[in-house]
Amino acid sequence: MKIYLAGPDVFLPDAIEIGRKKAAQCARHGLTGLYPLDNVVDLSSPDASLAIFKANEAMMDAADAIIANLTPFRGPSADAGTVYELGYMAGRGKLCFAYSNDPASYRERVAQHYDVTERPGGPHVDPEGLTVEDFGWPDNLMMIHALDLHGAPLVTPAVRPADIWHDLACFEACVRLAADRANAKS
Amino acid sequence: MKIYLAGPDVFLPDAIEIGRKKAAQCARHGLTGLYPLDNVVDLSSPDASLAIFKANEAMMDAADAIIANLTPFRGPSADAGTVYELGYMAGRGKLCFAYSNDPASYRERVAQHYDVTERPGGPHVDPEGLTVEDFGWPDNLMMIHALDLHGAPLVTPAVRPADIWHDLACFEACVRLAADRANAKS
Repeated sequence: MKIYLAGPDVFLPDAIEIGRKKAAQCARHGLTGLYPLDNVVDLSSPDASLAIFKANEAMMDAADAIIANLTPFRGPSADAGTVYELGYMAGRGKLCFAYSNDPASYRERVAQHYDVTERPGGPHVDPEGLTVEDFGWPDNLMMIHALDLHGAPLVTPAVRPADIWHDLACFEACVRLAADRANAKS
Repeated sequence: MKIYLAGPDVFLPDAIEIGRKKAAQCARHGLTGLYPLDNVVDLSSPDASLAIFKANEAMMDAADAIIANLTPFRGPSADAGTVYELGYMAGRGKLCFAYSNDPASYRERVAQHYDVTERPGGPHVDPEGLTVEDFGWPDNLMMIHALDLHGAPLVTPAVRPADIWHDLACFEACVRLAADRANAKS
């Protein structure tokens, strides 16, 4: 089973190293991890971003599954690029797994970033007056239930780890879920 | 042509009204707008969020295209639920259109929200040390090029409108793009 390793990990200073670690964890379970930075792209080209997109899309098309890192990124929700990729893989009928290293609910997290108004009998709203989704999930319901129905429920830690960008325990749990599914098929 | 109308519009205080306006704009061009809040869901049910997901997914499966509102939502990027839906529709091979009412580049927007460090010869980084994507696009390259290759380039205004949540000029431009595509097919 080939697994596309999606996440804002590619933006970390040690992005290549963390990709190697994730691929090694996959290999220990008999799986092949495909990491976006494995693609060779000429970043000095004027078409670099298009080349990155095409390489990532081809990598997703070649994969059987995705493990997405949905740890909140620059705000209360997951990284947009990663979320796009999760949706793409669900749309392609691939197996979808994901983790978030922040177990807080979306509502709690929005309240950490913004001045949320609680209205009796009505929804909580942000400073712009927009409703704050409040089903108790760690992020938007579309991702949460996509995982429930297209793979396995979002994996979160009992307690937020000290280093949310490098702790791979929840990633490891996703790898085990994928390996179980691969073994059940073979 | 049936068009799924995705966006954080569903979180607006006048969510139903804006959905009606968008559907009416579609109808004027001979298109059928499908709006998530058209689905009837019992919000008092313990399974309400799952019911919303299933209804939205069925609506996307029934649609030929998506027009996604990628206006930045609670941070520098688009709404995660909307981005998931854009990815899902691209994965399903549907036509993808989108607009953002904020024409600023992603890098500019991150700098409005966070203390970005510019490193000579290296990438710009946020306070956590993560690279800030800097290709000049309004959001993550995965969405930008998905639109280029699966529909039409992201529509943005020359100048940010006064009311980014209710200005429908860029939405109208997306409807025209979809109508052109529908007419070319028929």
